[in-house]
Amino acid sequence: MGIIGAGPAGLLLSRLLHVQGIDSVVLENRDRAYVEARIRAGILESHTVQTLRDVGVGDRLDREGLHHTGIHLQIPGERVHLDFEALCGRTVWVYGQTEVVKDLIATQLDEGPPLLFCVTDVQPHDVDTDSPRITFTDADGVAQELQCDVVVGADGFHGVSRPLVTAATGGKVWERVYPFSWLGILADAAPATDDLVYAWHPDGFALYSMRSPSVSRLYVQVDPTEKIEDWSDERIWDALDERLGLSGWSVNRGPITEKSILPMRSFVSTPMRHGRLFLAGDAAHIVPPTGAKGLNLAVADVTLLATALVRLLQEKETDLVDAYSDTALRRIWRCTHFSWWMTSMLHTVSAAQGGDDFDHQLQLSQLRRVFASEAAQRELAENYTGLPIER
Amino acid sequence: MGIIGAGPAGLLLSRLLHVQGIDSVVLENRDRAYVEARIRAGILESHTVQTLRDVGVGDRLDREGLHHTGIHLQIPGERVHLDFEALCGRTVWVYGQTEVVKDLIATQLDEGPPLLFCVTDVQPHDVDTDSPRITFTDADGVAQELQCDVVVGADGFHGVSRPLVTAATGGKVWERVYPFSWLGILADAAPATDDLVYAWHPDGFALYSMRSPSVSRLYVQVDPTEKIEDWSDERIWDALDERLGLSGWSVNRGPITEKSILPMRSFVSTPMRHGRLFLAGDAAHIVPPTGAKGLNLAVADVTLLATALVRLLQEKETDLVDAYSDTALRRIWRCTHFSWWMTSMLHTVSAAQGGDDFDHQLQLSQLRRVFASEAAQRELAENYTGLPIER
Repeated sequence: MGIIGAGPAGLLLSRLLHVQGIDSVVLENRDRAYVEARIRAGILESHTVQTLRDVGVGDRLDREGLHHTGIHLQIPGERVHLDFEALCGRTVWVYGQTEVVKDLIATQLDEGPPLLFCVTDVQPHDVDTDSPRITFTDADGVAQELQCDVVVGADGFHGVSRPLVTAATGGKVWERVYPFSWLGILADAAPATDDLVYAWHPDGFALYSMRSPSVSRLYVQVDPTEKIEDWSDERIWDALDERLGLSGWSVNRGPITEKSILPMRSFVSTPMRHGRLFLAGDAAHIVPPTGAKGLNLAVADVTLLATALVRLLQEKETDLVDAYSDTALRRIWRCTHFSWWMTSMLHTVSAAQGGDDFDHQLQLSQLRRVFASEAAQRELAENYTGLPIER
Repeated sequence: MGIIGAGPAGLLLSRLLHVQGIDSVVLENRDRAYVEARIRAGILESHTVQTLRDVGVGDRLDREGLHHTGIHLQIPGERVHLDFEALCGRTVWVYGQTEVVKDLIATQLDEGPPLLFCVTDVQPHDVDTDSPRITFTDADGVAQELQCDVVVGADGFHGVSRPLVTAATGGKVWERVYPFSWLGILADAAPATDDLVYAWHPDGFALYSMRSPSVSRLYVQVDPTEKIEDWSDERIWDALDERLGLSGWSVNRGPITEKSILPMRSFVSTPMRHGRLFLAGDAAHIVPPTGAKGLNLAVADVTLLATALVRLLQEKETDLVDAYSDTALRRIWRCTHFSWWMTSMLHTVSAAQGGDDFDHQLQLSQLRRVFASEAAQRELAENYTGLPIER
C-alpha cells in the first residue's frame, strides 16, 4: 500500500491499516520539522478522539487535550452558551492538529510502517490495474519505485492525486471561494474563556479559541486583499477587543508567536476513486474552518477507507471500496453544508462584495433563534460535535 | 379609531377592538367584490385560528377548513412527511385568506363597526398629535373627515401610511427581490395529496396545495421575466408532473379557474409607528410565500396592536404602544428569516442570475438533513406552525 502525504489523513490511515496487519509506505515531500510545524485546526470530534485512542495514539491527547462540552455564540452585547453534552450527549476536544500529527509521526517512526520525508517527483502509475506503482525520488536523490496493491492520495488540495482521478473519471468539482479571510494568531496568553467564543460583529467575525491553558488561538475576519504586514499586533488586539468584548469581560493579551491570513474556500471533488487510487482528506474536499470540520472529515474518510481496504485486501471483496466514494461523500456534503451555514451565519460581507444590511438582519435573526430554541441549538450541536460515522 | 385598509389586518383589528368596546371605522379604496376575490395565502397557524374563533368569526373555518398536521418535503425520487403534531404539538389549517376576509366582512357589515368601501383620497393628518384625522372622499363622492384617537395603516405594501411613517421618523427599509416568481393556479381538481407537498427540483420549485376537497392550488417556480400567456394549461400541468411526480403517484388535473404570476420579495420597514399612526401587516412587511407567513404575521401584528391600543385608550397607559414596534419586529424578523430560509432551500437560481451547482448541492444536503434529523424537522415545524405570540 502506498500512501501519498503525511498529514493526519495519510498517517492515520497507515496506522489504522497497520493495526489490522496491512503494511504501507507513507511518502511526504516536506521534511518532518515542516510537517510538525503546520498550524491547523484544533477541534476534535468524539469519533476522532476515539479513533486515535483505538490505534494507540491517544495518550498525550488524553493528558494534554482540553475537553470541551460546549461553545459560546455571541452578538454585540449578548453571549450565549450552548451545552453540547446536554443538547446531544456528545462533546469535543481541543488539541491541535499539529499535535495529532506529531503523535502519529512519533508512533510511526517508532513502530513502523515506513514513513519517508523529503521525497520528490511522486507519481502514481497503473492505478487502473490491480498492480499500481508509485515512482518517486527519495531524500538521497535516488529514483525509487513502489509496487502497491492500492495507492491512496492523501496529498492535500495541491497534491498530484486528485487531478489524476478527476481526469480519468471525468469527475466533477464544486468550489466556492468566500469573500473574506481569517487572520489567525497564536499568543502566549491564558484564554479568558472556558469554551470557544464565536462572535458575529458588524466589523466581521471573530473567534476566541485556545491550544492550552497558556496559549490562545484567535481569529478576526479580514478582507481577502488585506496584507498581514498591515496588521500590527496592536491593531489585531484592538479588533479582537472590539468584536469579542463584553461588559466586564475582555480578551487576554500576550506575545503573538504566529500570525497569518487564511483564505476561506469550500471545495468538493467527485468521485473519490479511480481504480486502485483512492482520495482522502483535503485531496478531495476543503471546508472553511468555521465549523471545525476539516480534520474530522479527513479522519472520517480514512476510517471508512481503512475498513474498505481491509475487506478488499484480506477478504478480496470489492463491495466496500466500490461504495467508498458515495458513502464518504454523504458525510462530506453534510459537513460542507454545515461549514457553509456556520460561515454564512457569522461572517459579514461588505457592500462592495454584494452584501447588504438585509443579510445582517437575517444573520442576527438566525443567531437569536439559536439563542432561544432548543431545536436550533441541538441541530447545531449534533453537527458541530460530529454525526455518527456511516459504515 | 380610523383603520385604513380592509384586508385581514384591518378587518381583524377592527373586530378585536370591537369586542373590547372600542369603535373604529375601516376605510377601503376597493369595492367589496374585489376585496373578496383576491386570491392570497391559505395556511393558518394555530394562533390565527384561535384568534378568529375568539372574536366570533371561526364558525365557517371550523366547518370548511382543512386541519393539516404536517407537510411533505420532496427531492427527485424521495418524498418525506413531517408530522408537525408529533414534532412540536402544533398544527395548521388550510383555509383561504379570501375566505377569512369574507367571514370578517360579513360579520362586520352585520354587527358593525362601520366598513366603507370605494373610498378615495385617503390621507391621515396630525398623527403626531393626540387628535389625528383622516380625510377621504366617500363612495358617493363626498369629502369626509374622520376624527380619531388613533390611525392604523393596514393598507398594504402600496398604501399611503408607510411612507408617512418612514419620512417622519427617518425610518429604515430592508428589501430583497428574489430572482424567481411563482406561477400559481387554482384548479377544479381533487388534491392528490393529503398534506401540502413542497418539492425541490432542478427545474425549480413546485408546491401542491389545496383549498378544499375539490379545489387544488398549485405553484411552479418561473423566471420573473416569464409571461402568463406563454404558459398554456398543458405546459403548467406538464411542469407540475415533472417536478412533483413520484413513481406510482401523479398530480390530479382539472379545469384551471385562475392563473397568475406572483413576484417574490422580502421587505421590512421600521419603525412601525409614528405618533398615533401605527402600521400593521403588509404595510410594514412582505415575506415570500414559501413559509406561509404573510397572513399569520398580519394577524400577529394586530393581536399585539389591539392589546396595546386597548391599554392606551382605556387605561391611558402608553407602555404597550411604545413597545409595539420593537415587539412586533422581533416576530417579523423571525418570520422573515424563516421565509427566506424556506425560499432559499427550495428554489433554484439560474446561472444567469448567479446560481451554481454548488447551491444545488447545499440545498439537497440541507433537505436530506431535514429528512434525517429530528432536530432539523422540529426547527422547521416550530417555525412553520407559528411560534407563540409575544405579548
